[in-house]
Amino acid sequence: MKAAIINVTGYAGVELARILHRHPSVNLTCVTGRSAAGQRLGDFFPHLSDIDLTIEADLNGSVDLVFSALPHKASAEACAPLLKQGIRVVDISADFRINSAAEYEAWYGVTHPCPEYLEEAVYGLTELTRSQVRSASLVANPGCYPTGAILALAPAVKYGIIEPDIIVDSKSGVSGAGRGLSLLTHFSEVNESVQAYSVDGHRHLPEITQELGKLSKGFEPSITFLPHLIPMTRGILSSCYASIKAGAIPLNDKGKKELTDLYREFYKGETFVKVVSVPPMTKHTLGNNDCIVFPTLDVRTGRLMAISCLDNLVKGAAGQAIQNMNVMFGLPEDEGLTQLALYP
Amino acid sequence: MKAAIINVTGYAGVELARILHRHPSVNLTCVTGRSAAGQRLGDFFPHLSDIDLTIEADLNGSVDLVFSALPHKASAEACAPLLKQGIRVVDISADFRINSAAEYEAWYGVTHPCPEYLEEAVYGLTELTRSQVRSASLVANPGCYPTGAILALAPAVKYGIIEPDIIVDSKSGVSGAGRGLSLLTHFSEVNESVQAYSVDGHRHLPEITQELGKLSKGFEPSITFLPHLIPMTRGILSSCYASIKAGAIPLNDKGKKELTDLYREFYKGETFVKVVSVPPMTKHTLGNNDCIVFPTLDVRTGRLMAISCLDNLVKGAAGQAIQNMNVMFGLPEDEGLTQLALYP
Amino acid sequence: MKAAIINVTGYAGVELARILHRHPSVNLTCVTGRSAAGQRLGDFFPHLSDIDLTIEADLNGSVDLVFSALPHKASAEACAPLLKQGIRVVDISADFRINSAAEYEAWYGVTHPCPEYLEEAVYGLTELTRSQVRSASLVANPGCYPTGAILALAPAVKYGIIEPDIIVDSKSGVSGAGRGLSLLTHFSEVNESVQAYSVDGHRHLPEITQELGKLSKGFEPSITFLPHLIPMTRGILSSCYASIKAGAIPLNDKGKKELTDLYREFYKGETFVKVVSVPPMTKHTLGNNDCIVFPTLDVRTGRLMAISCLDNLVKGAAGQAIQNMNVMFGLPEDEGLTQLALYP
Amino acid sequence: MKAAIINVTGYAGVELARILHRHPSVNLTCVTGRSAAGQRLGDFFPHLSDIDLTIEADLNGSVDLVFSALPHKASAEACAPLLKQGIRVVDISADFRINSAAEYEAWYGVTHPCPEYLEEAVYGLTELTRSQVRSASLVANPGCYPTGAILALAPAVKYGIIEPDIIVDSKSGVSGAGRGLSLLTHFSEVNESVQAYSVDGHRHLPEITQELGKLSKGFEPSITFLPHLIPMTRGILSSCYASIKAGAIPLNDKGKKELTDLYREFYKGETFVKVVSVPPMTKHTLGNNDCIVFPTLDVRTGRLMAISCLDNLVKGAAGQAIQNMNVMFGLPEDEGLTQLALYP
Repeated sequence: MKAAIINVTGYAGVELARILHRHPSVNLTCVTGRSAAGQRLGDFFPHLSDIDLTIEADLNGSVDLVFSALPHKASAEACAPLLKQGIRVVDISADFRINSAAEYEAWYGVTHPCPEYLEEAVYGLTELTRSQVRSASLVANPGCYPTGAILALAPAVKYGIIEPDIIVDSKSGVSGAGRGLSLLTHFSEVNESVQAYSVDGHRHLPEITQELGKLSKGFEPSITFLPHLIPMTRGILSSCYASIKAGAIPLNDKGKKELTDLYREFYKGETFVKVVSVPPMTKHTLGNNDCIVFPTLDVRTGRLMAISCLDNLVKGAAGQAIQNMNVMFGLPEDEGLTQLALYP
Repeated sequence: MKAAIINVTGYAGVELARILHRHPSVNLTCVTGRSAAGQRLGDFFPHLSDIDLTIEADLNGSVDLVFSALPHKASAEACAPLLKQGIRVVDISADFRINSAAEYEAWYGVTHPCPEYLEEAVYGLTELTRSQVRSASLVANPGCYPTGAILALAPAVKYGIIEPDIIVDSKSGVSGAGRGLSLLTHFSEVNESVQAYSVDGHRHLPEITQELGKLSKGFEPSITFLPHLIPMTRGILSSCYASIKAGAIPLNDKGKKELTDLYREFYKGETFVKVVSVPPMTKHTLGNNDCIVFPTLDVRTGRLMAISCLDNLVKGAAGQAIQNMNVMFGLPEDEGLTQLALYP
Repeated sequence: MKAAIINVTGYAGVELARILHRHPSVNLTCVTGRSAAGQRLGDFFPHLSDIDLTIEADLNGSVDLVFSALPHKASAEACAPLLKQGIRVVDISADFRINSAAEYEAWYGVTHPCPEYLEEAVYGLTELTRSQVRSASLVANPGCYPTGAILALAPAVKYGIIEPDIIVDSKSGVSGAGRGLSLLTHFSEVNESVQAYSVDGHRHLPEITQELGKLSKGFEPSITFLPHLIPMTRGILSSCYASIKAGAIPLNDKGKKELTDLYREFYKGETFVKVVSVPPMTKHTLGNNDCIVFPTLDVRTGRLMAISCLDNLVKGAAGQAIQNMNVMFGLPEDEGLTQLALYP
Repeated sequence: MKAAIINVTGYAGVELARILHRHPSVNLTCVTGRSAAGQRLGDFFPHLSDIDLTIEADLNGSVDLVFSALPHKASAEACAPLLKQGIRVVDISADFRINSAAEYEAWYGVTHPCPEYLEEAVYGLTELTRSQVRSASLVANPGCYPTGAILALAPAVKYGIIEPDIIVDSKSGVSGAGRGLSLLTHFSEVNESVQAYSVDGHRHLPEITQELGKLSKGFEPSITFLPHLIPMTRGILSSCYASIKAGAIPLNDKGKKELTDLYREFYKGETFVKVVSVPPMTKHTLGNNDCIVFPTLDVRTGRLMAISCLDNLVKGAAGQAIQNMNVMFGLPEDEGLTQLALYP
């Protein structure tokens, strides 16, 4: 099959190219990027010098699937005509993640260019929505933070063991902020420092609330989500806190074991979600498509602490997009994604 | 006045020496360190080559004050005879921080060597206990995490605006783990990674609970405290979450302003606690004695988010110890501590 | 074919396991590690949890090839009996790199356990010794620094364009120092700092001298080699300086072009050595088996500046070992090694 | 005395403010910065919130000394009118460092705005030009790289022990590239990577050549200077190589000792230059005005290896500027500069 990437020049786009190049069933036939049009992909990104492609201004040639790695709004505008032509799309941007156009517009501050596609769009957190992804023509690839937060909390929500008051405290590497220049991502400002940001509400919050809410009838999560920037390039670790429902799990070591078992049951057979019993580190997901989940109890206070980690550019973006593509095209779900994490 | 440092060879000890060397009212007359005894301080620590001292095996000469930077238990054992001689002590270790010997023993797994001093020991979070520090013969210098967490939450507790269910999610630089070697602090393991640790309960938790509980009668905090190691050397940022008591503060921009005003009122006149209205970064405290506190509201969920940051080796250890010394000896509280943060 | 790794618990060993696991023609059937014997490989190294192996105390089962990742001396001791049994060996240690037992002993301070194998051992810098590697029973895998330095200088030596006075200034990530604990690799000491080490002579120097000397009859290099530790995990960049022989290359832009062409000619057809015309960064080799070489001229002073970069654990260790294995067993040289660099 | 800073908003400017604020003999009365004019200094730079100043568009009020931290050309244009008014100036830019206007123009690609001041300008590498600095009205503050390179090589040149063929390989933290945004200083590009830059000749080269040439009659250095960017914020380590003149120093341990003694003799009485006998690390100069110099011999090849390290924003910029100011105004040379390095 043939695939194209719109806007290959950002970090999500270039990561798509890196992974697709070694995908056994896919030919990457076209990559676009307005500002770099006409340049060899390998000149723009030296680590891709093995890929024999020129960056185009616009899509050309016929393809079976398009990945859009454009910013929000621009992405929807680019995807709509493709969808009309019957080309299947995985959209890395936020444009089709939020079911309600009104809520999208409230958070993103723009009018949605094509709300008519919101209903058919499938939120592509593959482990939770696999059956819909299979037949989707438009997959909204989840945000990097929501992927980790939802996977950390989904079993607890599904099995009804937590109260809806939830806190998600996330620590992210800087690549999540993209390749665009800003003082926030200037080396000398970020290095040897940590800070919270988007304290008035990060745009990934509504996704988390929406998708967790779907997992259990009547569950209306009230989530405080606070992201932090830490001095590393890749990786997100999310520490999630919620009160255990009275009596749902014993508040002792036996309860911890029970909790782990529940999580293992929930993710049984999943290739990319690993439930572990020691605190994970982002390094153990560097460059691969895993999300490692560690659930435990604070037995003193009766709280669930569920920690997840992943590589924001792989499971948090390009890797999950390819996982979705695999599902959409009936390929083995892990094809092209079997790379082990780069440790140390 | 004359001061000595017991165990100068750890990171807290060496930081004490660095700051004291430039303190206008103090002569650092003796530094000890068993493993390095006999070496010039400046040979062991090249950045201290301007200090003309030899590392001793044991204290010698008369001094007015001793800082102990020994590990717990060893520290209490070293401090007891000094106290008996009437020498005032600031203990950097945890030995005299917890009022109850039983609780100390439960958390630290050792019998307290001299519980008879627990009652007279003053918990030296200077801003909150200044009047007791003034006349103390034994100051228990707070842990690095508790300093930031308590300063972030104290006004909210004192003014009764939060519920007792509290979450403290802390991100720490690696120097907090000390100079002793371990895989956890091995560069290639820590760099480009983040992880939670002490998930079953960190020893700094009882301090936080104990001291916050003293601030408001009947307030019994139920705290989940989760520390994380991030790839930087110095700095701790603590993000603290608690529900706002119904009606205590309006859940809107006006409420945020009110909250900031309350915090400013609480810390009025304090040199080292800065209440700010934008999210702070640890870099803005690098090498100085400040604790920057940013209180805000998650208006969607009715939660307080209070973020603090500090340099774990200064306000979180050596700097606060010297601040306590200044108070104990009637010196200006900021003497020797006026260094601005090293940015960038 | 079946392969085993002796001492999988160091960084070179674990990297071998990571790469071999996805090698299409190799079964990794045994991994050893004294201190961790009996543990699951995936428990010891969570990023290898997909590999179903237990760490053994000693080799067991029949294998076609053994990689030894033991420290020097121990490695030769372990390899000798294998070689006697006719098992082919790639030795990651330094034991068989230096042709002269006397020189080995001078640099390593130990008696060589089995100098009788020195003659048949092939120095496995694959690009330069491919034909000998093909039939070798014992390959001495080059050091990480020598790989970069020799590849940067080989064309200039071979084509006779430089004088023998050479300076190699290398900057290495910390993983090259291994997984063993030391203050030199303690996060808080290394981070935000750079330093030279082994100023009296690094053990990799004799390899560089020996191998460059073989490239041109009568060429006796006089090399100053100075390694530096910089705050990153993986990667080595070597900046090499030597005077251009009078008249060998025009000292102008045309000469730079000529020089690049010579290097391209020399490395024509090589998969893993990329000659580029802009200064490379180590990030462009992260996790892959490339060595990027950038030759240029300082036209003011008539000097060659040849800069190379590579991932010290891949092309500088495990990757090159597998490249050698591929050559030894008649497999495609890049099999299992086609991973693109992880950028950013 | 009263001092002002032109262009306080760059890293050199803000570092001047940080240090001057605590200088006992200086009042910082005015800071300028076009883009930030009207803002409180402490709002623009939170770590300076203790300084009660507003950023001005232009200088106002009478001052005894002006520090210019503008970019080249703009700096000379701003300094000329001040000099005409008799105000003494320390210029952090490159505008008055190079004695020849023609050479300046060749390297900087602009016409010098006021070459008439080149002759009276004193190159302010204080240790080497102290007596001229004393009475200077215009001090050209040295570049960060030249400061380290010249201090590392000066004794060897002065005592005539090296040949003029010199290689300077420097490794710099990223803050040297300033606060302006660029892909080169974008966190995700710089972190976990090292690269050489300015391979066709860095603008700091002519300074190094010029100043070393002045130290010994007839000595015409032929210098290859190659700077590298490494993933840290502050610090420069320069490794300098040159052949020892035949017979000048014995090529053995005795010679190393002799060499160290010569360097110690040369820098006798200097507060800020420390000659050491083990390889230094930049961390040992973090935030202070020291330059640590380590001279040694490669006895195998007969080469001097002289390594220096410093904080590029202190001894490499703002600190040295203040050191020059102290000398110009007859103050103790280390006044305001006695801060010890921030370790770890």
